[in-house]
Amino acid sequence: MSTVKLKECLTHIRTQLDNVVDFWLKHSHDTVHGGFFTCLGKDGHVYDEMKYVWLQGRQVWMYCRLYRTMGRFCKPEILEAAKTGGEFLRKNARVLGSSNPWKCAFCLTRDGRAVKVQRSIFSECFYIMAMDELSRVTDDKDLQLEAEQMMEQIIYWVRVDSSGLGRPSLPGDVPTNSMAVPMMLLCLVQQLTEGREEAVTQKYKELGNWCVEQILQHIQRGGTAILENVSVNGEELPGCQGRLQNPGHALEAGWFLLQYSAMWGDDNLQKTAINKFVELPYQNGWDKKHGGLFYFLDVDHHCPTQLEWNMKLWWPHCEALIAFLMAYSQTKKPELLERFYQIYEYTFKHFPDNDSGEWYGYLTQEGKVALDFKGGPFKGFFHVPRSLFMCECILTDLLAKHN
Amino acid sequence: MSTVKLKECLTHIRTQLDNVVDFWLKHSHDTVHGGFFTCLGKDGHVYDEMKYVWLQGRQVWMYCRLYRTMGRFCKPEILEAAKTGGEFLRKNARVLGSSNPWKCAFCLTRDGRAVKVQRSIFSECFYIMAMDELSRVTDDKDLQLEAEQMMEQIIYWVRVDSSGLGRPSLPGDVPTNSMAVPMMLLCLVQQLTEGREEAVTQKYKELGNWCVEQILQHIQRGGTAILENVSVNGEELPGCQGRLQNPGHALEAGWFLLQYSAMWGDDNLQKTAINKFVELPYQNGWDKKHGGLFYFLDVDHHCPTQLEWNMKLWWPHCEALIAFLMAYSQTKKPELLERFYQIYEYTFKHFPDNDSGEWYGYLTQEGKVALDFKGGPFKGFFHVPRSLFMCECILTDLLAKHN
Repeated sequence: MSTVKLKECLTHIRTQLDNVVDFWLKHSHDTVHGGFFTCLGKDGHVYDEMKYVWLQGRQVWMYCRLYRTMGRFCKPEILEAAKTGGEFLRKNARVLGSSNPWKCAFCLTRDGRAVKVQRSIFSECFYIMAMDELSRVTDDKDLQLEAEQMMEQIIYWVRVDSSGLGRPSLPGDVPTNSMAVPMMLLCLVQQLTEGREEAVTQKYKELGNWCVEQILQHIQRGGTAILENVSVNGEELPGCQGRLQNPGHALEAGWFLLQYSAMWGDDNLQKTAINKFVELPYQNGWDKKHGGLFYFLDVDHHCPTQLEWNMKLWWPHCEALIAFLMAYSQTKKPELLERFYQIYEYTFKHFPDNDSGEWYGYLTQEGKVALDFKGGPFKGFFHVPRSLFMCECILTDLLAKHN
Repeated sequence: MSTVKLKECLTHIRTQLDNVVDFWLKHSHDTVHGGFFTCLGKDGHVYDEMKYVWLQGRQVWMYCRLYRTMGRFCKPEILEAAKTGGEFLRKNARVLGSSNPWKCAFCLTRDGRAVKVQRSIFSECFYIMAMDELSRVTDDKDLQLEAEQMMEQIIYWVRVDSSGLGRPSLPGDVPTNSMAVPMMLLCLVQQLTEGREEAVTQKYKELGNWCVEQILQHIQRGGTAILENVSVNGEELPGCQGRLQNPGHALEAGWFLLQYSAMWGDDNLQKTAINKFVELPYQNGWDKKHGGLFYFLDVDHHCPTQLEWNMKLWWPHCEALIAFLMAYSQTKKPELLERFYQIYEYTFKHFPDNDSGEWYGYLTQEGKVALDFKGGPFKGFFHVPRSLFMCECILTDLLAKHN
């Protein structure tokens, strides 16, 4: 391990994180209604005022995490923005008059009126992340309680009865284990338990184990592929849906599993996480010709039906950076660090906009910018700063231990 | 007008139509359960068995239209396929146990069990097209009656009360005039009335005029742009949704309006259709650098948020061919024919697969094949054969009149 190269990476990543935080502090705050604009053009201008609940929750979470754990971000400006974002969510995210008081909207008007509701759990999940992390910086127990109460509702929807989400029950609609659901719940288990008293850890222990089990069901084809959707019994589903691979998602699951294995000292899980959820998605998902990770692939090499299948998106690369660096930090295997450097090189060559700041989100297969905005309905203040934050933490730790 | 060039086009288009019909006759029929496979790979292999109701209805319609109006397709094999497709739809498309007996599923399993239901009217619209056209070739009045009954339900959903479609009423969700709705209804008016007795024509006359009015509301920015979504009062909507242009859709609306103006002898409507819905979307939507029509554009030149915005899709080019050729045949203005030739050249150079038959559907901005399947969840036996069929009819007519 060359500490020179690691130090270079750390310096660069730290600068990038500062740059990205500045971009969102400068351009995204709605000082009139609270909350955040996330549709930001190349230079940061607001091109749409819609407020996406996923992205509101994620931005509150990220601000709080930075404020709480990284000295240089412990600034009143950041705390204040997180608080007003939290207030905006508490005031507006839940759908008034809905049959369930916990159901959140997918997007809101600038002044907080519900525009769309998804029949899934993710708005609620990011609401929980926001409230729990905000409770940690404000020491507001009400927020923690609200997060835990909404968590109970989500667990009920996922494990007992999903009919309250509003999807009609149809005879051809087979119940599916989609990777996103156990991944998201595992992330929430880690959020709600980190650093909390033993009783809380124990409360969510069974759920955490269930999530891991559900994620491991996605190892298919005799261990040669991670498939995005499987049956609830862990079998491959027919057709496109069953053959779908989403390498970035598998890599993200990889580092969630690595964190969990470290928490419980589970060496077997660590090994599986690295072999199956870090190395395998890279092997199957890396574009040998143009570099970068494909967005979607079909395990039998049919052409995926998603129009963006061959595009290079920012977030799979963000997740890959965390996954390989964390895998290396836990094992010190040099090949994992080499892979980190390879992804690092592609990522920093293609995604950051050195003129106007922040990162582009969507490149063509060949690596050309296809959509030049910095924020949109699905790109907010989350994957880029979370990756930079996690990598900075891991690199700092690695270098500290080395000295 | 050079008849040599027109004859060349006609010959080529006729050959292409034969080729495309053969492809679907050979690869798409499900001889076990009836209906059609539409997920067909490059060489025609079935890569997914899901049956999409839009595409089932469209294939029944197209087979019947070809059988009924083009001598060389008046073959038992085609009629038989249309009939079994119609039976499959009648047996399976409507969602059992739904609160409304007319609500159709969006997709079905191979054996006809509902998988997904959309909260919109389009599955029902293509069901009507299928049933009405099938009634014309089989002389089955029950089918015509069923089509008209379902039409009443759709009119009710669109013009009286949409709550039965299942979308929750939300305070920030502004009622919108989306171009797709009046276009689709105008298409159905033409389907249900063509060649039928005066009473039927009169029954749908007011609806036809209402559709035209709704479509014309999409002329915005002082007549310089067609916007895909406007308010129900015909005003521009805020944000991305309001600024969205979909040139292919505008061109398709263009030839719907041209047909309607010809039917009623409305010269003003013809002029508006050509200036605003044929020439303008071409001017705004053509990629001056790489050729071809963009899929989506923002009227203020922001980057659209749709990942596929700069891709070149087959169907806008199919619709542009019909629109310019029809506009030329009605007016004989040479510049319209020149434009037709330009689009013809791009289209036939890039979309047909001369090795395995049929057309690719999805190209990159530069014109490279991005998805190599011939059929998918949104590409069936419809836009390509309808365009070839319409162009063959118009060219035949033009050449006949010239002799």
